[in-house]
Amino acid sequence: MKKIFANGTDEVAFLADLKKRSGETNKKVTEVVTEIIENVKNNGDKAVKDYTLKFDGNLPQYYEVPREVINDALTEADQEFVDALLNAQEKIADFHQRQVEQSFISAKDNGVIMGQRTRGLHRVGLYVPGGTAAYPSSVLMNAIPAKIAGVKEIIMVTPPLKDGTPNKDILVAAAICGVDRVFLSGGAQAIAALAYGTEEIPKCDKIVGPGNIYVATAKKLLYGVVDIDMIAGPSEILVIADGTANPKFAAADLMSQAEHDVLASAIMVTTSEKLADDTIKEIDRQKEYLSRKSIIEKSLDDYGAVIIAESREKCVELANEIAPEHLEVLMENPFELLGSLDNAGSIFLGHYASEPLGDYYAGPNHVLPTSGTARFFSPLGVASFTKRTAYTYYTEDALRQAKDDIVLIAEREGLTAHANAIKVRFE
Amino acid sequence: MKKIFANGTDEVAFLADLKKRSGETNKKVTEVVTEIIENVKNNGDKAVKDYTLKFDGNLPQYYEVPREVINDALTEADQEFVDALLNAQEKIADFHQRQVEQSFISAKDNGVIMGQRTRGLHRVGLYVPGGTAAYPSSVLMNAIPAKIAGVKEIIMVTPPLKDGTPNKDILVAAAICGVDRVFLSGGAQAIAALAYGTEEIPKCDKIVGPGNIYVATAKKLLYGVVDIDMIAGPSEILVIADGTANPKFAAADLMSQAEHDVLASAIMVTTSEKLADDTIKEIDRQKEYLSRKSIIEKSLDDYGAVIIAESREKCVELANEIAPEHLEVLMENPFELLGSLDNAGSIFLGHYASEPLGDYYAGPNHVLPTSGTARFFSPLGVASFTKRTAYTYYTEDALRQAKDDIVLIAEREGLTAHANAIKVRFE
Repeated sequence: MKKIFANGTDEVAFLADLKKRSGETNKKVTEVVTEIIENVKNNGDKAVKDYTLKFDGNLPQYYEVPREVINDALTEADQEFVDALLNAQEKIADFHQRQVEQSFISAKDNGVIMGQRTRGLHRVGLYVPGGTAAYPSSVLMNAIPAKIAGVKEIIMVTPPLKDGTPNKDILVAAAICGVDRVFLSGGAQAIAALAYGTEEIPKCDKIVGPGNIYVATAKKLLYGVVDIDMIAGPSEILVIADGTANPKFAAADLMSQAEHDVLASAIMVTTSEKLADDTIKEIDRQKEYLSRKSIIEKSLDDYGAVIIAESREKCVELANEIAPEHLEVLMENPFELLGSLDNAGSIFLGHYASEPLGDYYAGPNHVLPTSGTARFFSPLGVASFTKRTAYTYYTEDALRQAKDDIVLIAEREGLTAHANAIKVRFE
Repeated sequence: MKKIFANGTDEVAFLADLKKRSGETNKKVTEVVTEIIENVKNNGDKAVKDYTLKFDGNLPQYYEVPREVINDALTEADQEFVDALLNAQEKIADFHQRQVEQSFISAKDNGVIMGQRTRGLHRVGLYVPGGTAAYPSSVLMNAIPAKIAGVKEIIMVTPPLKDGTPNKDILVAAAICGVDRVFLSGGAQAIAALAYGTEEIPKCDKIVGPGNIYVATAKKLLYGVVDIDMIAGPSEILVIADGTANPKFAAADLMSQAEHDVLASAIMVTTSEKLADDTIKEIDRQKEYLSRKSIIEKSLDDYGAVIIAESREKCVELANEIAPEHLEVLMENPFELLGSLDNAGSIFLGHYASEPLGDYYAGPNHVLPTSGTARFFSPLGVASFTKRTAYTYYTEDALRQAKDDIVLIAEREGLTAHANAIKVRFE
């Protein structure tokens, strides 16, 4: 873990390097995925199944997982695990309920009525990766806001385990969240099937959920045919800390992001050089007993740093520049900083709001903007699953009053057919 | 203008053809634009100015238009035009004010605090095309919601007129809406300058506004470096009408969209064959006196149709399938249909809500999802110019209560460093 002094040169060089990290789509992958998309668009389920056979070596136990298999997964699951997920669901739902946007109407005394209607999307596709990245928490974070938004149908696609059976933990999460249908299919072919629809897999309006580079590239290429969530980059945490922070906590929180991926980035900016040194020591101590030690070491070496800054203000300035996905404030009176922390996906305030609390449990979403895009992107939420429609009603009298202004602007813009549409109504 | 009977075959074939219309980016353009972006990224203002010289043949009167020139444009403008824009601004602002999203906080009795903060983006770039597509109304529809969202700075870029001077009508609209700075620069080079920033043009968080295929391609390629609005396709109107509709109005409204572009699409679906025939006659009569007659003829020939359907329900069904940008309901009791019209950017209800009313004046935005994307995209609005940040504060006791659930889920997901971050706090 590098130790850097924020002297106006060293931290600038480090942050510039960091920006080069973001996982670009590559040309070869784009070619492969383009072909897969074309094939699924033209040949539907047959193409999906052919790719499954080609890439996985065998067909899954089910193409669509029967409802009773999903229900059985829930009833047969270890009760402690189910209870933990139900507790998480309750808290996540409570937070997301507050995001619901009301439709509005504006009815004027001249009979004019205008408004905006907010509705859930009709059908959403949810991708859940296989292998070690099959996370039940990801099902919760995507499906709960979709349901609250009023999405009528959630179609989950997920690769089967090596033996062709569905991942039981994923089915449990799907059952808890009311996912409507589950197909055992993964990769770019599953994304294409959700975008265009096949005989068996219904066409969706939006596709969400994380995935490998093939999945991410398929989503990117199909954006516009279908809506997608963000193209998520590698995970990130920035901890800003003062002398009141506990180095044990800081070290543990940094590593909780570093373990995701060798491309993950974990950075601490602190006013205390003692904390910096102690945190590095704690990392060396704690990592020894963590199962993903080698991933943690590589990501901390490549994209981790402890930066020593002269003041709280400098910590805030660097945080706003980095615009991290997760921002922890391990400082005294953390609420004082909330107003000045402008760019972050999710902010964790104080010594007990450890980032994994937000990954699973507290309530806010864990699907967050990465790679500095918190400058302009927002967390996934209820709004991500809605569409707005404006509507306007005018009376003849109200239009007569507005007529001259509209005709004047339209003619000034050289659009005489626009002007004509108003004029013919009064001829 | 084709006349089609909705018999389950003919209208299906027509709509399938229509879907092929959307203006794809092409490979040659992508190559040119990629090079422009690279060059502007590396060489800043010099590259922007070189391209201006190369493409336009001369440099504009100003690179940045001085503030007093913008102010003078407003004070010297024809008062009727200024008043028309001010009236439009008032109505557009009134509607968009209602879209403002409040931040929220959820404070629990165990000391837990969570919330979501909604803030305007820091700086937004607004592209305004030159030539015949330089529309003051476009400035209003983009800048007003940005200002209401709390955007601190709006940077407009727009190509100069042929003689190198700024378009006065655009400056008037910019002055009225409080646009902060205006640069006379167009094309992909202006978009790249807004995305990366140059010495003179500040780096923006989001770029909005219409443009030609070079501008649209640059926005698409830079998405992620910067946020963008929709990639707008050619304009569309769908009119659904019954026997109560006036064929004069229907014809005029269809042509008001058709005049935009030879790729525009204007379709009527009606329960009345008499209305269909009379509307076609009215189009032939009215188009004779419209300045864009040849564009209207071409777009109606290629992408226009009058479809005769057996019932109101069938009209609604086709409307939901087409998911048009603009949807007019020229029917009796139009409000009865509002609930069943699921997919549309903006709905115009009744015989006096002519679509150009919405383009300029009524209040709802005129930047709308095209090409069937109203299934999942929404109109431009205040939310387009905001970012949300979640925040979480937990007490030690609250985390202790949640601890076992979080650790259990984390370990089940194989993420031991996540579990560790919670556990070290209670060791």
